[in-house]
Amino acid sequence: MRPLQDTESTTSGPDRRVKGAPRVTANPLSGVHESALPVAPSRGRLRPLGIGEVRITGGFWGERQRTNAAATLEHCLRWMHHVGWIDNFRAAVEGRLPRDRRGREFSDSDVYKLIEAMAWEHGRTGDPGPDAAIRELTAIIAPVQEDDGYLNTAFGRPGQPGRYSDLEWGHELYCYGHLIQAGVARARTAGADDVFVTIARRAADHVCDVFGPDGLDGVCGHPEIEMALVELARYTGEQRYLDQAVAFVERRGHGTLADIEFGRTYYQDDVPVREADVFRGHAVRALYLASGAVDVAVESRDDDLLDAVVRQWEATVARRTYITGGMGSQHMDEAFGDDFVLPPDRAYSETCAGVASVMLSWRLLLATGEPRFADLAERTLYNVVAASPAADGRSFFYANTLHQRRRGAVPAADTDSPRAASSMRAPWFAVSCCPPNVARTLAGLATYLVTAGPSGLQIHQYADAVVSTHLDDGAPVGFETTTGYPHDGVVTVRITEAPGTPWTLSLRVPAWATRGGVLVEPDGRRRPVEPGTADVHRRFAVGEVVRLELPTSPRWVAADPRIDAVRGTAAVERGPLVMCVESPDLPAGHEVDDVRVDAASAPADADGTVTVAGSYEQVGDASWPYQSPASSSGTRTPARIPLVPYFTWAERGPSTMRVWLPTLTPEGGPADEHT
Amino acid sequence: MRPLQDTESTTSGPDRRVKGAPRVTANPLSGVHESALPVAPSRGRLRPLGIGEVRITGGFWGERQRTNAAATLEHCLRWMHHVGWIDNFRAAVEGRLPRDRRGREFSDSDVYKLIEAMAWEHGRTGDPGPDAAIRELTAIIAPVQEDDGYLNTAFGRPGQPGRYSDLEWGHELYCYGHLIQAGVARARTAGADDVFVTIARRAADHVCDVFGPDGLDGVCGHPEIEMALVELARYTGEQRYLDQAVAFVERRGHGTLADIEFGRTYYQDDVPVREADVFRGHAVRALYLASGAVDVAVESRDDDLLDAVVRQWEATVARRTYITGGMGSQHMDEAFGDDFVLPPDRAYSETCAGVASVMLSWRLLLATGEPRFADLAERTLYNVVAASPAADGRSFFYANTLHQRRRGAVPAADTDSPRAASSMRAPWFAVSCCPPNVARTLAGLATYLVTAGPSGLQIHQYADAVVSTHLDDGAPVGFETTTGYPHDGVVTVRITEAPGTPWTLSLRVPAWATRGGVLVEPDGRRRPVEPGTADVHRRFAVGEVVRLELPTSPRWVAADPRIDAVRGTAAVERGPLVMCVESPDLPAGHEVDDVRVDAASAPADADGTVTVAGSYEQVGDASWPYQSPASSSGTRTPARIPLVPYFTWAERGPSTMRVWLPTLTPEGGPADEHT
Repeated sequence: MRPLQDTESTTSGPDRRVKGAPRVTANPLSGVHESALPVAPSRGRLRPLGIGEVRITGGFWGERQRTNAAATLEHCLRWMHHVGWIDNFRAAVEGRLPRDRRGREFSDSDVYKLIEAMAWEHGRTGDPGPDAAIRELTAIIAPVQEDDGYLNTAFGRPGQPGRYSDLEWGHELYCYGHLIQAGVARARTAGADDVFVTIARRAADHVCDVFGPDGLDGVCGHPEIEMALVELARYTGEQRYLDQAVAFVERRGHGTLADIEFGRTYYQDDVPVREADVFRGHAVRALYLASGAVDVAVESRDDDLLDAVVRQWEATVARRTYITGGMGSQHMDEAFGDDFVLPPDRAYSETCAGVASVMLSWRLLLATGEPRFADLAERTLYNVVAASPAADGRSFFYANTLHQRRRGAVPAADTDSPRAASSMRAPWFAVSCCPPNVARTLAGLATYLVTAGPSGLQIHQYADAVVSTHLDDGAPVGFETTTGYPHDGVVTVRITEAPGTPWTLSLRVPAWATRGGVLVEPDGRRRPVEPGTADVHRRFAVGEVVRLELPTSPRWVAADPRIDAVRGTAAVERGPLVMCVESPDLPAGHEVDDVRVDAASAPADADGTVTVAGSYEQVGDASWPYQSPASSSGTRTPARIPLVPYFTWAERGPSTMRVWLPTLTPEGGPADEHT
Repeated sequence: MRPLQDTESTTSGPDRRVKGAPRVTANPLSGVHESALPVAPSRGRLRPLGIGEVRITGGFWGERQRTNAAATLEHCLRWMHHVGWIDNFRAAVEGRLPRDRRGREFSDSDVYKLIEAMAWEHGRTGDPGPDAAIRELTAIIAPVQEDDGYLNTAFGRPGQPGRYSDLEWGHELYCYGHLIQAGVARARTAGADDVFVTIARRAADHVCDVFGPDGLDGVCGHPEIEMALVELARYTGEQRYLDQAVAFVERRGHGTLADIEFGRTYYQDDVPVREADVFRGHAVRALYLASGAVDVAVESRDDDLLDAVVRQWEATVARRTYITGGMGSQHMDEAFGDDFVLPPDRAYSETCAGVASVMLSWRLLLATGEPRFADLAERTLYNVVAASPAADGRSFFYANTLHQRRRGAVPAADTDSPRAASSMRAPWFAVSCCPPNVARTLAGLATYLVTAGPSGLQIHQYADAVVSTHLDDGAPVGFETTTGYPHDGVVTVRITEAPGTPWTLSLRVPAWATRGGVLVEPDGRRRPVEPGTADVHRRFAVGEVVRLELPTSPRWVAADPRIDAVRGTAAVERGPLVMCVESPDLPAGHEVDDVRVDAASAPADADGTVTVAGSYEQVGDASWPYQSPASSSGTRTPARIPLVPYFTWAERGPSTMRVWLPTLTPEGGPADEHT
């Protein structure tokens, strides 16, 4: 295990910062400087830019950031008060626990995730509102922390289970993980002296005291502490936090947690991280653990561990991931299913797993520079993270189905909903980890767009944005991106600051852009581009424009035949968007399950409205559904079938929806009939 | 609510017994008389025959009854000792509870189910072994019963939760239900004076005291008490037990049980029984409740309630039942899924649900006389109940998958297994309700074969059997059935006792026998028969033979296209058997997931070996499994694909298996490819 590098010093291997280069880039709205970002590895192929260096200014993600700021943060705060999770802290101080405690044993963590979201929001815009809210919450939380740094409203008091008496399910270290991530966010946006930062550091010191080499040889049933400790190590330069993260990763997989009915696989205690072949068990746990393992591998220079996570990522993406990028196909244990078991109707695809997948893919991108990680992040951002919140930012999907067969009931506006009731978005859940996860991801989203490397700058995600940073030699550089993405495939990059020396602007060409992608150089020359990256290397001048034109005409997609659940169906994608059929767009009397499509005929796109050739087919009822193949009956009505982006579904009242659509055989009959 | 009828008296409506007719039929092995049977309604279209009147003498079911007797009963008893469920009763008496208690809160019930199985076995053969085992267990159980009749090892003592403090999950009434069913079985096979019968009656009286009109207005989270109380009412003639069963059925569905994350649907407390449209929630709970509701409806002459259950049965069979007859498609809550959500790989199809489905279908058959209920019972008996136990009777499936993708590990021989680990049969489970359920069903199976009605006798299930009973007018009648069923479709019925008057012998022609069924009359005349019943009405002479010839050549089956999970596949049935492909029968290097079949070409059957035309196809791996439809790749090898009966799978070591097989389009390509 290698020592943590001072983030300012050069080391062997790619170095991203020259000693002594002044930090001059700051966010003009908030004044926070470039290091305000969630993940700041001390080494890797690419250097992420911080909130001080990149701002989203409009468009698809700009709108979502505004809604997040104007509605979602307040919504989460109001609900956390309403369901008592904030009062739990007051109750702790006032001696009213356990009597008055409300919520699950991990409810503290959702308050911390909201604080993290507020910290990024304050750093993003300088808005004093989130800053004041953090101070208010800090005042409520601080007195609950005990002298030794312990902090948890569910354990340790008379009438409560003892500290660390239930590592399997207690979530204590998980709560610290979110506390520490929020503390790092606050430190990077408001400075190290903030009281909340102190709380987080004291908790981290406590964790190292209790679980260090001379302490408890345990792990948490829910990974999260690992990546948090590494980030704190990066922020503070303190080796101790990295050592503790390494210990937690190395301890896992040896059966120290209890065997349970779901199996130790559930919390990835079946196999050591570096020996596993694929992500398995509870999806959020698996992905948070993998993220922490990448952080540990990067800081420890542990290529074997990094390779192991890459290998697991590859196997999971090839065999255990939904077309939306969603992960998790079992409701029973919110877990990955077996290879190729990916039922659309029973998709779990937890929003938090989507967030975690983006976090993991981001870390792998920074470490390796490989665009496939940004490809998956894009798919997941547009089809899971953007799908979860309603357009008004006040209700959410927890589980993200790909096939809604019947209209659900409208969730009550003032009561929390069961977590897997995914027919419509709900304002809150008994387990409400997803809304604050969406909030912190959206608030900090700008940091996922652009990186800097030895050769120049790399654009990974497309949005209306302003970038102002510097190259490795310290020379200032900047550009504005303008785009109608995801609906429009044209991305315009206009240089706003340029050094006199040549550098490389690299634009990701998504894997789905297999035909027709074009890059237009500043001199107007057009060249075709393939999936991967399109690079422009030149001595840029201010005002010059590079334009990427991606082919966003809708396209058919078929699944690997080993995914039995979608045999005989096809889906439509348009740019990065997965499309779906939803009942409000169908003629009266027709349901989504009546739809059949002709996947041999190209989809049409008229002014953004996508349709495909197909028919509506209604099947007669039978007393027993398994009959001789010749005995099907039904009526068929040819039609053009309208599709809409999946992320927009369930915004027009109770509806039915499906992504994977049964196909017609070339002769016109259903593929599953044999006469 | 109508009064319980004296089972000896005539009433309005069909009557099955003439006043004063002597009970002369007795089982020659055990001496138990005709009323030894699990379900003895006081009215209905058909009268079931008891262990005194029908005996299975060999063949498919005879073999299973012998194995059940020689191996399974002893296996269950040994395991119940091994895991401490019997010692729980001793521990109760010796003051060692809760400290020494082992097993789940409902483990008492599995001991009672084993006693019920032993009672039927003793009644079936007169074997003193089960009788002695019952006496031994009775001696252990009796002292645990408290003065007021309460009996449960998990509640009510210092350190244990209080009596009836957790109606949702405590299973106390559920345990009484199994105790009472076992008590009735013991009474009918060993007489009312048996000590175990007294224990059961005292418990029933206690239930009526505590939960009667002046008592607790509650229901049990797990239905079972309902049908047990009705059967006790039938046996004793006591109205009180029927009234209590009626109360439990009527109280249900009004939200008196707590709302839980699964929803009140889980334990059918969302909607009153008579208002529901379909079976939903936990499958065993739903089916036990429905069985109890039928029993209540029959004894109370409540046609509205009976119609409601029939309606629910119809909807469930049309939309929520697997091809095997299995019910339950969600692992998460062992529950029914939504209409048409029937994934083969994640089929739960709990063995206990199969047993419960047979119990329900039997009750509906007796009430209505309609062969469709015997059709479903046949399908479920051969493809769920017969599939669960291994051929040696010492291991079982709990969940019954229809698609095993990867080879599982061999379960440990001396440790219980998690309940849903269905890759191979396991000797025992932490929740081991299925093995004793199989045992009691097999021990009493003869009572499901033949009924008597006003016009004669009806054969519903085919086995080597001897029947000796009497017609409604008291005239003795008897026959022997001989058959190679299920492998052979010929059933021979030879008259052994005949009155001088004409009567009708009715044979069920299964729904799957759509073409080629033939009935051969005693005079040799052959006539075609259709699904339903084939009746022979004559003045039979001893020695005359009626023969039914059913077409058991293998046939293709396709699913309703609304069952998305099996789109693009077909299955094979042979007689009542569902067939499957299993990896030991495939050439080296080929897996069941490589199989493609040509459902346009008739299956072949050479001396019982079934094959279909098809191919093996191996798909290349890709980094992302969703691509343009034209981009499939793979190798295809034409072959004849061998199939075996589903109930035989997993007997040759770890294997893979599938029932629903991807089909080829008529042109020879897979139905899910479009080029």
